[in-house]
Amino acid sequence: MMAARSYIMPEAMARAVPRISWTTKKVCKIQGFLKDTTLLKSSTDDDLGGGHGHLLIKNNTRIHVMSSDISSPSFAVEFLDAWDDEYGGIVIDPSSLPSSANAFASALRASLTNWKMKGKKGIWLKILSEQADLIPIAIQEGFNYHHAEPGYAMLTYWIPDGPCMLPASPSHQIGVGGFVINEKREVLVVKEKCPCSCSGVWKMPTGYINKSEDIFSGAIREVKEETGVDTIFLKLVAFRHAHLVAFEKSDLLFVCMLKPLSCEITVDEKELQAAKWMPIDEYIGQPFYEEDQMSRRVIEASIAAYEGHYNGFAARQLTSKLDGKLSYLYYDCSSSF
Amino acid sequence: MMAARSYIMPEAMARAVPRISWTTKKVCKIQGFLKDTTLLKSSTDDDLGGGHGHLLIKNNTRIHVMSSDISSPSFAVEFLDAWDDEYGGIVIDPSSLPSSANAFASALRASLTNWKMKGKKGIWLKILSEQADLIPIAIQEGFNYHHAEPGYAMLTYWIPDGPCMLPASPSHQIGVGGFVINEKREVLVVKEKCPCSCSGVWKMPTGYINKSEDIFSGAIREVKEETGVDTIFLKLVAFRHAHLVAFEKSDLLFVCMLKPLSCEITVDEKELQAAKWMPIDEYIGQPFYEEDQMSRRVIEASIAAYEGHYNGFAARQLTSKLDGKLSYLYYDCSSSF
Repeated sequence: MMAARSYIMPEAMARAVPRISWTTKKVCKIQGFLKDTTLLKSSTDDDLGGGHGHLLIKNNTRIHVMSSDISSPSFAVEFLDAWDDEYGGIVIDPSSLPSSANAFASALRASLTNWKMKGKKGIWLKILSEQADLIPIAIQEGFNYHHAEPGYAMLTYWIPDGPCMLPASPSHQIGVGGFVINEKREVLVVKEKCPCSCSGVWKMPTGYINKSEDIFSGAIREVKEETGVDTIFLKLVAFRHAHLVAFEKSDLLFVCMLKPLSCEITVDEKELQAAKWMPIDEYIGQPFYEEDQMSRRVIEASIAAYEGHYNGFAARQLTSKLDGKLSYLYYDCSSSF
Repeated sequence: MMAARSYIMPEAMARAVPRISWTTKKVCKIQGFLKDTTLLKSSTDDDLGGGHGHLLIKNNTRIHVMSSDISSPSFAVEFLDAWDDEYGGIVIDPSSLPSSANAFASALRASLTNWKMKGKKGIWLKILSEQADLIPIAIQEGFNYHHAEPGYAMLTYWIPDGPCMLPASPSHQIGVGGFVINEKREVLVVKEKCPCSCSGVWKMPTGYINKSEDIFSGAIREVKEETGVDTIFLKLVAFRHAHLVAFEKSDLLFVCMLKPLSCEITVDEKELQAAKWMPIDEYIGQPFYEEDQMSRRVIEASIAAYEGHYNGFAARQLTSKLDGKLSYLYYDCSSSF
């Protein structure tokens, strides 16, 4: 509770406080903080601990807490280090987070107050694994998970009223398959080690693309890593979209037709039992594919592409004025327009 | 340190301990735990607290800790509730995690020991936001983030030596755009509210797909939500693949040609300034598109698809024997094979 003492508030201070509602008429003694300061908040409830009323005075980098109890020393709460993004939002520096949970809590609250005053929109808070103890604090302050991957969790906070306009959380993993066929009409096939329902079946090499990797690059790389065969990308034959693949996540698998530049096979024994060149008819004649509509259709389309009566999609790198970046458009370039 | 007392270990117990290496030859007195028990571990280091050597005896549901110090009472550590998945792994029940951090730490360690003994592979641990204080404990035990979204974080632990064979973390957000053109060669266009570089430009309606939603369904839904117009899916025209869109994440945008079933427009005022039908030539003639290769190529391909000289990809629902599920394959159905 506020101590029963009163202090004179300088007029300049009072004028700088257009929207603060005083729960009492008590004021606090201000000592040398008038320059470049803004009064943020007064309270009789103590949300900074200690049981005393406080004034929060902001200058450029920190909030000073003036206590109405002379015996309790004033202390400064730092803002979190952060920078503006291009969308009226804030990105907090993950390498400068306070190591102490209490200091983080204080700085986060103070920073949020500051950003709300400034009309900021989306706040991005990346917390590295080694500081995971800060996560419950961020969640308590109203942050939500946006995404995570080994090494960190990213949380966000949307300040304005109305729907959150931040980019969606990543929801899909992206796989690639390489359909590689040589001049002898032999397909490059692999037999995997995994104990899943398809073990024992000869399949095209597949895998996940790496961070920021292009689909066709990922296909070339996976074929190289699994079999040692060099290839170039010809066209995208098809893609499959599957849901609830792994814990409510979804999966896109892009099947790419690749032309081999070499023929010698070196098997990746960590992942594969074996790899070889197999005649097309033997490949598609495997009993597994008689019952698997999806794989059979993909193989048929791939063979049609090889034989020249299936267009598929090529990949073209184009600029976008939206972000000034180059990115790939996959579309049927053989059509005239 | 182990108390300097010795106890007789029943022969049955000793035979049940094929791979335990005893750091000393001391044994502990076993009281009534012989039935359905397995000796897990002995230690002189105390990783359960208390400074005494312990034997860990497992029966079906719990680990009993036998202390070599008679004065320190034995206590039981529960395993975490969990079930087997189809890949030799374990899924921990997120709704049964202990609420206390200490209890969680003990149960997690005990469970990991148990799963390692059983030769389990990947462990999946979903921690809801309200229990985020358990995350640092899981990370300390060797878990890594797999993914997160509002409401929870998913962590994983790969037990075997060798490369982790768990599915990749989701890395892409999936957007859809609807190219809707009526019989008067007018395109359905919107002007967004967002303060980004394209504000003021008339564009096709776009948005993110929902969890487990199909691409063509998402396009139909976004057009309906933003403009009120009903449509059906005709074909996929093209897709763009962009990287480093939002915090190192990547983005796929699928452009779908849709046929309108209605023409009246109701604007979603939360997201849009306006929406209308615009003659094709006026649409593609906007100055923005003269400088934006990507958008211009997409529009040209879409118009070619409308005019019938561009195949694109259709969507066909097919079963896959791999997982027994139905999913969509996007490919050129008009080619003969």
